[in-house]
Amino acid sequence: MTFRTEKDSLGPRKVPADAYYGVQTVRALENFQITGIPISLFPRLVQAIACVKKAAAYANMELGLLDEERGNAIIQAAREVRSGKFNDQFPVDVIQGGAGTSVNMNANEVICNRALEIMGHEKGEYQYLHPNNHVNLSQSTNDVYPTSLKIALTWSCADLFKELDLLVESFEAKGEEFADVLKMGRTQLQDAVPMTLGQEFAAYAVTIHEDISRLHEILPFLTESNMGATAIGTGINTVEGYAEAVCRFLSAITDLEITPAVNLVEATNDTGAFVLVSGMLKRISVKLSKVCNDLRLLSSGPHTGLNEINLPAMQPGSSIMPAKVNPVIPEAVNQVCYQVIGNDLTVTMAAEGGQLELNVFEPIIAFNLFQSVDMLARASLMLRKRCVDGITANRERCAELVHRSVGAVTALSPVIGYEAAASIAKESDKTGRPVLDLVVERGLLSRDEAEKMLDPLAMTRPSAR
Amino acid sequence: MTFRTEKDSLGPRKVPADAYYGVQTVRALENFQITGIPISLFPRLVQAIACVKKAAAYANMELGLLDEERGNAIIQAAREVRSGKFNDQFPVDVIQGGAGTSVNMNANEVICNRALEIMGHEKGEYQYLHPNNHVNLSQSTNDVYPTSLKIALTWSCADLFKELDLLVESFEAKGEEFADVLKMGRTQLQDAVPMTLGQEFAAYAVTIHEDISRLHEILPFLTESNMGATAIGTGINTVEGYAEAVCRFLSAITDLEITPAVNLVEATNDTGAFVLVSGMLKRISVKLSKVCNDLRLLSSGPHTGLNEINLPAMQPGSSIMPAKVNPVIPEAVNQVCYQVIGNDLTVTMAAEGGQLELNVFEPIIAFNLFQSVDMLARASLMLRKRCVDGITANRERCAELVHRSVGAVTALSPVIGYEAAASIAKESDKTGRPVLDLVVERGLLSRDEAEKMLDPLAMTRPSAR
Amino acid sequence: MTFRTEKDSLGPRKVPADAYYGVQTVRALENFQITGIPISLFPRLVQAIACVKKAAAYANMELGLLDEERGNAIIQAAREVRSGKFNDQFPVDVIQGGAGTSVNMNANEVICNRALEIMGHEKGEYQYLHPNNHVNLSQSTNDVYPTSLKIALTWSCADLFKELDLLVESFEAKGEEFADVLKMGRTQLQDAVPMTLGQEFAAYAVTIHEDISRLHEILPFLTESNMGATAIGTGINTVEGYAEAVCRFLSAITDLEITPAVNLVEATNDTGAFVLVSGMLKRISVKLSKVCNDLRLLSSGPHTGLNEINLPAMQPGSSIMPAKVNPVIPEAVNQVCYQVIGNDLTVTMAAEGGQLELNVFEPIIAFNLFQSVDMLARASLMLRKRCVDGITANRERCAELVHRSVGAVTALSPVIGYEAAASIAKESDKTGRPVLDLVVERGLLSRDEAEKMLDPLAMTRPSAR
Amino acid sequence: MTFRTEKDSLGPRKVPADAYYGVQTVRALENFQITGIPISLFPRLVQAIACVKKAAAYANMELGLLDEERGNAIIQAAREVRSGKFNDQFPVDVIQGGAGTSVNMNANEVICNRALEIMGHEKGEYQYLHPNNHVNLSQSTNDVYPTSLKIALTWSCADLFKELDLLVESFEAKGEEFADVLKMGRTQLQDAVPMTLGQEFAAYAVTIHEDISRLHEILPFLTESNMGATAIGTGINTVEGYAEAVCRFLSAITDLEITPAVNLVEATNDTGAFVLVSGMLKRISVKLSKVCNDLRLLSSGPHTGLNEINLPAMQPGSSIMPAKVNPVIPEAVNQVCYQVIGNDLTVTMAAEGGQLELNVFEPIIAFNLFQSVDMLARASLMLRKRCVDGITANRERCAELVHRSVGAVTALSPVIGYEAAASIAKESDKTGRPVLDLVVERGLLSRDEAEKMLDPLAMTRPSAR
Repeated sequence: MTFRTEKDSLGPRKVPADAYYGVQTVRALENFQITGIPISLFPRLVQAIACVKKAAAYANMELGLLDEERGNAIIQAAREVRSGKFNDQFPVDVIQGGAGTSVNMNANEVICNRALEIMGHEKGEYQYLHPNNHVNLSQSTNDVYPTSLKIALTWSCADLFKELDLLVESFEAKGEEFADVLKMGRTQLQDAVPMTLGQEFAAYAVTIHEDISRLHEILPFLTESNMGATAIGTGINTVEGYAEAVCRFLSAITDLEITPAVNLVEATNDTGAFVLVSGMLKRISVKLSKVCNDLRLLSSGPHTGLNEINLPAMQPGSSIMPAKVNPVIPEAVNQVCYQVIGNDLTVTMAAEGGQLELNVFEPIIAFNLFQSVDMLARASLMLRKRCVDGITANRERCAELVHRSVGAVTALSPVIGYEAAASIAKESDKTGRPVLDLVVERGLLSRDEAEKMLDPLAMTRPSAR
Repeated sequence: MTFRTEKDSLGPRKVPADAYYGVQTVRALENFQITGIPISLFPRLVQAIACVKKAAAYANMELGLLDEERGNAIIQAAREVRSGKFNDQFPVDVIQGGAGTSVNMNANEVICNRALEIMGHEKGEYQYLHPNNHVNLSQSTNDVYPTSLKIALTWSCADLFKELDLLVESFEAKGEEFADVLKMGRTQLQDAVPMTLGQEFAAYAVTIHEDISRLHEILPFLTESNMGATAIGTGINTVEGYAEAVCRFLSAITDLEITPAVNLVEATNDTGAFVLVSGMLKRISVKLSKVCNDLRLLSSGPHTGLNEINLPAMQPGSSIMPAKVNPVIPEAVNQVCYQVIGNDLTVTMAAEGGQLELNVFEPIIAFNLFQSVDMLARASLMLRKRCVDGITANRERCAELVHRSVGAVTALSPVIGYEAAASIAKESDKTGRPVLDLVVERGLLSRDEAEKMLDPLAMTRPSAR
Repeated sequence: MTFRTEKDSLGPRKVPADAYYGVQTVRALENFQITGIPISLFPRLVQAIACVKKAAAYANMELGLLDEERGNAIIQAAREVRSGKFNDQFPVDVIQGGAGTSVNMNANEVICNRALEIMGHEKGEYQYLHPNNHVNLSQSTNDVYPTSLKIALTWSCADLFKELDLLVESFEAKGEEFADVLKMGRTQLQDAVPMTLGQEFAAYAVTIHEDISRLHEILPFLTESNMGATAIGTGINTVEGYAEAVCRFLSAITDLEITPAVNLVEATNDTGAFVLVSGMLKRISVKLSKVCNDLRLLSSGPHTGLNEINLPAMQPGSSIMPAKVNPVIPEAVNQVCYQVIGNDLTVTMAAEGGQLELNVFEPIIAFNLFQSVDMLARASLMLRKRCVDGITANRERCAELVHRSVGAVTALSPVIGYEAAASIAKESDKTGRPVLDLVVERGLLSRDEAEKMLDPLAMTRPSAR
Repeated sequence: MTFRTEKDSLGPRKVPADAYYGVQTVRALENFQITGIPISLFPRLVQAIACVKKAAAYANMELGLLDEERGNAIIQAAREVRSGKFNDQFPVDVIQGGAGTSVNMNANEVICNRALEIMGHEKGEYQYLHPNNHVNLSQSTNDVYPTSLKIALTWSCADLFKELDLLVESFEAKGEEFADVLKMGRTQLQDAVPMTLGQEFAAYAVTIHEDISRLHEILPFLTESNMGATAIGTGINTVEGYAEAVCRFLSAITDLEITPAVNLVEATNDTGAFVLVSGMLKRISVKLSKVCNDLRLLSSGPHTGLNEINLPAMQPGSSIMPAKVNPVIPEAVNQVCYQVIGNDLTVTMAAEGGQLELNVFEPIIAFNLFQSVDMLARASLMLRKRCVDGITANRERCAELVHRSVGAVTALSPVIGYEAAASIAKESDKTGRPVLDLVVERGLLSRDEAEKMLDPLAMTRPSAR
């Protein structure tokens, strides 16, 4: 292996001759060996940084701070980085100290060296184009890194939305398919009153749809950028108009509506937007986990559980129990949800730990948010295709449970009173005699009235006035 | 002590003769002895239930389900409960099983017995007016309790808003007061570049103001009510139009815009609104804690710390170290923030634990949300009045630190380049000689240029174009 | 109301004439209005501080630092405080800044003023006996407060042990009572293989018993004291031998084996013992919550659930559904468990937030640990007396489910192979024909062999060799 | 690519012809695409399963359940799997539904097919040796998977211990190196009393050493195995003596002291050992994070912070601020700690979610525990080698801060009283005049006495009697 020698303020260091990254990336590789997961495994983050570097170059050129040759070379190099061509040049560990400096410098170096080539120079000839002086011009890690994270997260959320939307449609379809399946509702796991299985699945669609809406509502906080803040938000080493210009170019490049933050000092030390997104992912997980818990309950059995629905069999359930089939898909989703909830705590602690003008813990925030969003998207896809789409109802079983239960007595209560209804329910439970017979026998209602009132389907909606 | 005997479906039980509550409250008192904190210590919850009961009575009367005499008596009794007159009649432990049934029945019984008196009967003569058949008519714990919680929380948040607004104003005032105090900014606790102390405090105002906005945006989800859902959201034992009517009356009574939830089945088992509010309280806490951490850092010393600001002395700091004064107020706020973050986890787990048609864990959600909102409001008040309002700046110390630091070298970088600037910074650090002298000596800039570029005030904003 | 005037280093302040507390307590009352919960509601904390003050006085006397008159007066006063006589003199809010200084000074002042009376002086005549110079002699909040917390927690844990032990006994008794109730085991909520209900309940006893053992094992870390550390662990203002002496007296007074920490600097800033205890309380909660989830599942129904056991009915279950009975006791326990888990997060964050020579956030740690221990003790008592002791088995139902299920096919697998067993299970499921008939019909086993192998009771233990 | 066809109870499926894994692994690959992280990235888990399979084969042979030919082939194959030779044959996603069934079946299939080759058969000829009937004989996923996890975790913890031990040594060495560096201690970030920098670093060694001890104490719970439990702990399909035999062989194979759990039903649904380990990892993280926070505080500056110590410079600190050097190593460690704390929550929720006879969420528990242990080990290594070992003290700065501070006045308090001392401290603070002069001037002490009492070194330990 051949090497070139580069130098930074800590001294010289060998860099592999064909590497586009440079000395600071080499130091980061030595310093941070924590997860073994390079940032290249988060290609959107790399793409987003490329967009930011490109936008900054345009803004610097427009403001007369960067000449055309260098500017265009940077822009071309950033475009190539965005295309994914240099992904393998981003080897830095996703968890690192330094508030993302190693990521930013990794990008500055790769873009610089590729731009040097474009300009007809050799890698490392920083006298012609410099990672800090030109590629990073008017920028700081402290604005580049969070802005890039936010853009990358916005892109990732788009995937999540797509999958959640499809999951909602899947639940809606089941809601319609099961609209006429009468079943008992349960509160506190105890027999309550009748409903339809369609109502149950339609509610799942609604609950997830609401989460989609909530997440949509907060996404604009991710396109609020602190570009122009530089080191601490005061805009040192920028000129007036730069913050606006870079956001304008960045909007064009990313096709997102990137807006400058109102107060750049605040925006530079604040991680509120990440806490917001993480909290919303947690909420999605709480609800998705609840839905999966329900699916597992409703499909429990087949002989010793509720057994109202069947989940599609995806694999033999047991290494020892022949023919057992388990709800493996919702089980996997539950676990994803627990992970997202744990990740939210990590994000919370990292956010709380920020000090003074900067939150240095953004890398762990990034790692957790990317993992959470990706996992939730994949879990939604898995849940839809490998579970919900194939769910079938055990109609007879559902009907039998309605018939067997005395919960229908609730419907009599407005007419015969809570206490009489309770007394009938108890007698029915003890003797096994139908509620209908008892209420007629006690002279509380005529058989006709009673039959009408005890029609379970009528109990699944308010009475007509 | 004299007693009357009441009876429910589990049998007879003695009730103190002068108690407005009845047999089910007595059972709840026996069953739940967990916190020793009665719901009467959450007067807003009691008031909100009273409002709900009143609204339901109006709606039932309008729909012809309740006669005038009984309806008016219920309304009058609920009005009196709302006034706080019967607060001592709500002794049930705030944590309880049963999804709030004991709270709802406590309210049904107190209102019923008071209404019986109004009607000229004795307490306990439920043949004239019945807690379940009349006071709870067209209702279920499963719609009354969450609706009441949401209303009570909305009221509590109003207090929080008031205090947070005042805190923002206090920080803004300090931002203006300190607008001309030049100081060093710090990133990663290391000397960075100059800023003003005013920028620092203005950023605190902005960050908290943003939290206020975020919390405002989600409050409408608290005025979405599932009244009309009754047991499981199907509206059993209600008539068409009831859900709308009760929300209409409830809006009038509470002066909030109460709207019926889109899907009552979903709304009855979903606790998403609580998760949302709790998550936002967590976010507020994360930021408030960060601000307090900063205040403690900036006021550290007086001789061995940063010592840029002085917090007002509130009490002798130590039982052993004479004259020590400690940042006790922000320390107390930090602790409140940790509590709110912990409470959010409790809310999260309780929300995830809901099953099928109901989340039975709403009491613990209520307990934690009320505690969090109240504590944050009190902490904000304390922080403002006993700390922020009295903060003073150590102007000379701030100036001296700016003078002493070499961070200003950053401003030279766009002209002399990152590497030359780094070299000068290092020499200055080693020799103690001013950056200005070194840059001129090395012939990189004229003294005039250098002086202009090294003006710290100029570094607190972007350069003019 | 009459007042006396006291003075501290911040100046003079009025104190109610009959108050035993003094000026610093008055300041704390003004400063901290957060929870409204005074430390007097944690009487064990007050008692433990009294013990510490008494032990310090003895040690100071033995070392010749305190004369007999003052020493004896302090000891007498501390004894009276421990007796609870002055509980109402401890009004400071449980959450406070200052690392417990207000609590320590509250104690110093009350003991001082009571001792002054004993000595024949007036309250406030600190020239004769001084809260700092004498009552707090050789001490600092930073050793007194954590040592007192640890002692108080040890006492509280004794209650918890008592209740957990009784709960274990209750589960064990049910384990024996249900030893012959054959039922189906379920994994992943799906029919698995037979077991006895006794095995299920015996396992609950074991799981909680293990928690008791784990908690016992870590309690010695609570009796490790940093007395003698004073301000930062260096022992400033103590003399050699004091640390040992005060632990010796404290052991005698509390009847606990109080040992001096190995490294007082470490012990003064470390909250590891609290994190350990909190983590163990979390573990207890995780398991107790799982047990309660199980109890709710097993008792679900009566007609549409598993219905294997009956929980005693504690109250009518619903305000709308007559005769419904809900598992309110385990539901309440679940909520307690969620609270403890949330509290553990608060403790964790507070512990992580310690800085340099002290963790200033011990008050919130104390608040959460006391709440968690107390709630768990009460929840255990409630669960035992109001639920477990009264659980009955639905023997026929359990037997019927065993009979109905095909899980027993597992037992055939070692002889006929996994695949043949799976095939038979599937056919039985589809046709409803018994496994026994099918295996004989296919010629895989003789009826005798098959009957022996399919005896469910035999499946509840390993085969004899 | 060529394929063979395998069949399980869900039907036939193509398997790559050269794959050692079989049909159930293929299904798992289709079903679970969540993290993209195959279990082969956790080689210890694969090794541990191989050990378990080998031990089970020995036990089965000893008990006459497995013939020599098959048994020896399984043993040989398992040995090869343990060697790492077939690591690429373990592609199943680490997060999966089914309680680890896919992992267990992956291992059963690989070992089976390799053993078939050893026996002279083709892969897939399960009529000669069957993954379930022979490799999994007397086993279930529900005992194999948790037992393997525990063994693998024990091995991983050994690495962690090694690194933590070395870190302790590193802190101890600094404690000795800095034993004579006098500095001010700080409580609540405010000037307290003198100590040595050596005491500070020695305390870090102690605090981490205590964590090591605590973790050691609970490791025995990881070598408690539920082998012999099979499906639900009743030992169905095992013979008497098997549980003991398999533990005996497993001990020999792993060189760990594997003991059978006391109650196999409990052990099969209980995840308490994992909660315990996770909680202890959390405690380590809380303390390690506190230590890193301290290191960052103590090294803050160089000009505007505490600046008592220097961390070795690992990389240029900023892309914009020349010559800035940041505490990147402790910052990275802080982030690892936040991750571990978040992971503990995931483990907690997964543990609480277990139901009835099994906790199906063990895969997410495994994922988080492995990540936490590995990250902590790497973080410890990084912290030691790239930070602690190279820390230097700024002796003059430390001395100057001691000199400048008035905290030393504390030492006068036992003689001149708290109030006089406070008054002198205040005057010294205001006038800048030394405490020594003031106390002599006021006639409170002779200069000799005062000088002796104000010797800072004397304040770093208790006085001689």
